[in-house]
Amino acid sequence: MSMHEKWMKRALELAEKGRGWTSPNPVVGAVLVKEDRIVGEGYHHLFGAPHAEIEAIRNAGENAAGSTLYVSLEPCCYFGKTPPCVEAIVRSGIREVVVATIDPNPKVNGEGIRALKNAGIPVSVGILEEQANECNRGFFSVIRKNRPWVTLKLGLTADGFIADVTGKSQWITSEPSRVYVKEQRLKYDAVMIGMGTVFKDDPSLLPENRMGFIPYRVILDDVLNMPFRMKLVSDEYKQRTILVVSTSEKDEKIKQMKALGVHVIQTERNELGWINLKAALTTLADFGITSIFCEGGGQVAGSLVSERLIDELQVFVAPKVIGTGIIAFSGLMKSLDEAIQLKWNEPVKIGEDIFLKGTLV
Amino acid sequence: MSMHEKWMKRALELAEKGRGWTSPNPVVGAVLVKEDRIVGEGYHHLFGAPHAEIEAIRNAGENAAGSTLYVSLEPCCYFGKTPPCVEAIVRSGIREVVVATIDPNPKVNGEGIRALKNAGIPVSVGILEEQANECNRGFFSVIRKNRPWVTLKLGLTADGFIADVTGKSQWITSEPSRVYVKEQRLKYDAVMIGMGTVFKDDPSLLPENRMGFIPYRVILDDVLNMPFRMKLVSDEYKQRTILVVSTSEKDEKIKQMKALGVHVIQTERNELGWINLKAALTTLADFGITSIFCEGGGQVAGSLVSERLIDELQVFVAPKVIGTGIIAFSGLMKSLDEAIQLKWNEPVKIGEDIFLKGTLV
Repeated sequence: MSMHEKWMKRALELAEKGRGWTSPNPVVGAVLVKEDRIVGEGYHHLFGAPHAEIEAIRNAGENAAGSTLYVSLEPCCYFGKTPPCVEAIVRSGIREVVVATIDPNPKVNGEGIRALKNAGIPVSVGILEEQANECNRGFFSVIRKNRPWVTLKLGLTADGFIADVTGKSQWITSEPSRVYVKEQRLKYDAVMIGMGTVFKDDPSLLPENRMGFIPYRVILDDVLNMPFRMKLVSDEYKQRTILVVSTSEKDEKIKQMKALGVHVIQTERNELGWINLKAALTTLADFGITSIFCEGGGQVAGSLVSERLIDELQVFVAPKVIGTGIIAFSGLMKSLDEAIQLKWNEPVKIGEDIFLKGTLV
Repeated sequence: MSMHEKWMKRALELAEKGRGWTSPNPVVGAVLVKEDRIVGEGYHHLFGAPHAEIEAIRNAGENAAGSTLYVSLEPCCYFGKTPPCVEAIVRSGIREVVVATIDPNPKVNGEGIRALKNAGIPVSVGILEEQANECNRGFFSVIRKNRPWVTLKLGLTADGFIADVTGKSQWITSEPSRVYVKEQRLKYDAVMIGMGTVFKDDPSLLPENRMGFIPYRVILDDVLNMPFRMKLVSDEYKQRTILVVSTSEKDEKIKQMKALGVHVIQTERNELGWINLKAALTTLADFGITSIFCEGGGQVAGSLVSERLIDELQVFVAPKVIGTGIIAFSGLMKSLDEAIQLKWNEPVKIGEDIFLKGTLV
């Protein structure tokens, strides 16, 4: 690992501290280095709060002058909720800037780098670019596709079923996998399921660690069937629940849900009278959600994949064979020639299960 | 790795050279070591030929005296096709014997070790025992279960189908996986499929490398439906084809198949009139087959797993989603509580696919 990479790795670590809190802004970390020593660090703490570069410059004080700035995303050059970072960088006397990746926001998109260069500050771009893109894939997705990044999680038997014929599914995967899933929820702005799963499991969809950020719990509930007794609309985190509905009726129930603190978002219907998923995702992006961890069930998974609204697929394969059961993607039927293609990462074992992760190509 | 393990590893490597040729005997390798140098090596070349120990002693000549013998399986102590190895070991002046694992054959089963000890030769047992058991799992299976070891191979989409709704399956997995499957065929005494796969693919089931041992090609063909035009009964390896039938008719066709050099083995029928798979496997063990690599299809896989006649499951998971298709285990329906349990090994990526391997527990 080069020195550049070493400091950028630190900037990326710092960026993670803002995870969840900064959306719909990106997570960003910044490190100021002088004579091979860190003289200032910062990260974007919260939507609306100062950017990482400003935090690092403040942290360094007069040591900022003559230092090199490592920042995980291109500095901004426009007035948003805060003044442009480029100005502060130039004013602080920073001698050189190293950027992991370009900010695709049309208001920046290389302009921040150009402004720094125009001010006589040398800029390098592309150090740990892949990791930097990965850590803001939600922010990038909203800019590029006008919808959040969607990861779909499946727990499958070795022969590919999400539940047995009786519908039982909760214990397909082993305890370590279930803990890992709960930990992952924290890496997304929202966790999402359909009403089938609500009725079957009455889940709470909370992360393992509830000391900090709690992701939104998004329920696709076309005609607002959610019973008031369910955990998602009655537990202490009910303000973190979003019901996405496509019905134009049930005004009274919507009012009652809102009175509880539950969010109800109205979105378009498709020709079948169900939620138009693409429109729903755009509505959620407008709400400030940049990334979604979808935990099923089969209806939601089938609809999402049919409309190519999934970016990553995570499959936990349990060491169990049942022969027949409920399939993962309801309603999808493709020939092998027209199969939806993935690209697998390296697989790992988690507990008794195998964990497969792939991106849709 | 200890010195003991180092020499035993060599013995296990030598054992592999006999793979295929020695069945129904085990593969065995032997190394003679004196003053930290190999003075003799040998392996069991062929069923009926001298045992590994004898080969190593001959190879060492007078250097055998005073050496340590590393042998991957307990030396025999009875007259079979060859005289007992224990006698030859004692006569050669070997000073010490290191054994990887005990020969479970009731005629040996510790008696070889006892005989050596009685002759005043110290014996250690258990060096690389797991690998030694693994390399003769077919031989062990026949002794313990009276049937060959059965590995079932599946090529699945990410959502668990062996073929799309049109029945198309040949190109689910990628080229490197298919080559790996062909290479694996060489590690088994036989490759096995059902007639569904014969009609669909007209496969030849040959290993990638055809310079040496060619595994038997076992076809489960209840009523002898095999057409004479199929590769399995018309190519240059047709003497390596075994048709397992349960019909008591079709004497004429059986005669014709045999005239071609094709083996036809009659076995029991079950209450449905199909092949009694357990009986068929025992019949194959009697024929000299100790290990089988089963490549499907769904009917055979379903029947084997229902009767718990599978020892290892290999799953190649392709990076493809199709939604609906043909399931892996036809006719099996278990609830999650009564699921057939596996134990996964570490997964690996092969080409674009993920390769999962598990043993049935």
